[in-house]
Amino acid sequence: MAKSFEFLFDYGSPFSYLANIQTPGFARRAGAAVIYRPILLGAVLKATGNSSPMAVPAKARYMADDLRRWAARYGVEFRMNPYPFLGNTLPLMRGAVAAQRVGAFGAYHDAIFRAVWADGLDLGDRGVLGDALRRAGIDAATLVAAAELPEVKDELRRNTENAIARGVFGAPSFLVGDELYWGNDRFDFIAEALARSV
Amino acid sequence: MAKSFEFLFDYGSPFSYLANIQTPGFARRAGAAVIYRPILLGAVLKATGNSSPMAVPAKARYMADDLRRWAARYGVEFRMNPYPFLGNTLPLMRGAVAAQRVGAFGAYHDAIFRAVWADGLDLGDRGVLGDALRRAGIDAATLVAAAELPEVKDELRRNTENAIARGVFGAPSFLVGDELYWGNDRFDFIAEALARSV
Repeated sequence: MAKSFEFLFDYGSPFSYLANIQTPGFARRAGAAVIYRPILLGAVLKATGNSSPMAVPAKARYMADDLRRWAARYGVEFRMNPYPFLGNTLPLMRGAVAAQRVGAFGAYHDAIFRAVWADGLDLGDRGVLGDALRRAGIDAATLVAAAELPEVKDELRRNTENAIARGVFGAPSFLVGDELYWGNDRFDFIAEALARSV
Repeated sequence: MAKSFEFLFDYGSPFSYLANIQTPGFARRAGAAVIYRPILLGAVLKATGNSSPMAVPAKARYMADDLRRWAARYGVEFRMNPYPFLGNTLPLMRGAVAAQRVGAFGAYHDAIFRAVWADGLDLGDRGVLGDALRRAGIDAATLVAAAELPEVKDELRRNTENAIARGVFGAPSFLVGDELYWGNDRFDFIAEALARSV
């Protein structure tokens, strides 16, 4: 069996954005396939009793610096996103599951992460979201409709419940078998785990 | 002026233990002096509204794995310490300030970190603490008495208040000028900051 690892993410998580940028190149170098798992971070935090680092003001200030430092290290655009849609990423995460089902995941995934954390757009505005999807060559009406299908909702719920059952408490999370890695800064450990998983 | 950075720590923080092991070698390579600042992490958490990662069960389980991975990476002994004295590190941190004043800091610092996180000892037991100090060549009675001096208590309080005023919310923390770095895994960023600080 080919090597693989799971990447669990929420579009509302800026460290997931940074991890996502590194993931394809890392996977290529490690000779491993990436399994992308959309999860609902808000539900994970609630179920585990965890809270966003942004809830502690001093930590939020530090996180802004840390994000800026990582973006500079990676040489990528980054800006904090001020819009309230980040408090409920359910529609965007259902959209990710829908995009996986209609074969548009790559374009959707990159377009949403970029719109939120590089362009700082308000994706709570249907017009802004529709424009971002169209620019990515995605039929916005079809995707938004697919995101409302019961099987799509169920799959996101299952992804999230499975993640919690496997020890996930935040995002981004990576799983190599049952081994959990949290954050954009654990690729070295993930590489070691993949090297062990022959 | 020679380059320097501040290392803020609490003996109750296992990531401070791991950071401490790396700090002297890092400082040597960076050509920078280390200013060791004992702080009372409990007071920092309380003042900032932050909480220990150990307060969230799923996060505590992950942290145990993460600590084990870092200890293996660094090639050092590590074990979780189960004793309740970790809930109040005030005597140990006052001891650090006292040790700085009597010129015994290096021996005290290494002995306490090792006793807590490599040997897993109960330093809430006066006999165990006394033995650990004696093994490190420290006059336990003198140090314990010095730790009760008003100026020692004041200095620890000032260290902690200054840390909070400068944005510290956890441990270990590093300061290069006003730039804050949190955790045992930010030495690369600290090196870059030191390289900028001519």
